[in-house]
Amino acid sequence: MTTESLLPAPPGVSGDAFRHAMARLPTGVTVVTTQGPDGPVGCTVNAVMSLSVRPPALLVSLASESRTLDRVLECGSFAVNVLPWSARHLARQFATGTAAQRFAGVSWQPQRGIPVLTAASVAAVCEVGSSVHVFDHALVVGVVTCIRADEQHPTVLYGNGQHRVGG
Amino acid sequence: MTTESLLPAPPGVSGDAFRHAMARLPTGVTVVTTQGPDGPVGCTVNAVMSLSVRPPALLVSLASESRTLDRVLECGSFAVNVLPWSARHLARQFATGTAAQRFAGVSWQPQRGIPVLTAASVAAVCEVGSSVHVFDHALVVGVVTCIRADEQHPTVLYGNGQHRVGG
Repeated sequence: MTTESLLPAPPGVSGDAFRHAMARLPTGVTVVTTQGPDGPVGCTVNAVMSLSVRPPALLVSLASESRTLDRVLECGSFAVNVLPWSARHLARQFATGTAAQRFAGVSWQPQRGIPVLTAASVAAVCEVGSSVHVFDHALVVGVVTCIRADEQHPTVLYGNGQHRVGG
Repeated sequence: MTTESLLPAPPGVSGDAFRHAMARLPTGVTVVTTQGPDGPVGCTVNAVMSLSVRPPALLVSLASESRTLDRVLECGSFAVNVLPWSARHLARQFATGTAAQRFAGVSWQPQRGIPVLTAASVAAVCEVGSSVHVFDHALVVGVVTCIRADEQHPTVLYGNGQHRVGG
């Protein structure tokens, strides 16, 4: 690396340069779900992290204008559904369209009143602990009230493509 | 999935069950670095996410007792160094020992006064925008002032093991 290879700074970091670089930080792929007034709602989210063990808590970042965010805060509970490789198509399905279109053909079960996707390799049902707006996103702390996981190969988003991990 | 496969809730989600499940959410592997009063310091961090494009910002979660956290907040700037597969050994090196031991044999360059690892596949130098303590961690918002990325295969942490992504 040379000094020149680092792009110069504010306002020098363009949105494109930032997006390009951050796409090279691998992430898991999840669908965040909750119960809306008219039925289950959800959206694809790549920005999820483990936060603390005591209490068991995770953090989800949702765009401030996200309809799912509004429903999560109204409901007070949500689920993080980690997509295995076998269900990677759900990332696209939960990225656009109406709630009904997103859930069309998708198997789910209510768990503590929150829709949990049957295909998820990890499912964590959370109560909203707190939320804070930072720039154009909301960081939502979820205190985990139910969790299960299996050993399916996960999906990793990297370089704008989906990749399978582990054999 | 059956209802029974979801473990019951607070206080029913044990630390072990939570750790086991969250290890199945794949993450990138980074080293967060900053300049301490006695030289470069840093630690391995798996909890990093992109936050916003305007301004270009990311979020890092550090344990409240982390020495690196103290140095980051004192300095006001830090770098996120994403580890490619070829530098995956640095995750272990930056997880224990003194600052001198962590940087032993590691090539780095100062960038805006912050040590940036030569081996990083993505390097983002940030100014601390804000920070908030949640449970036993601090969430640090970094506004990105320099960023560069290359196409090296990244390292993914999954199921407590490191995996290579993409070919």
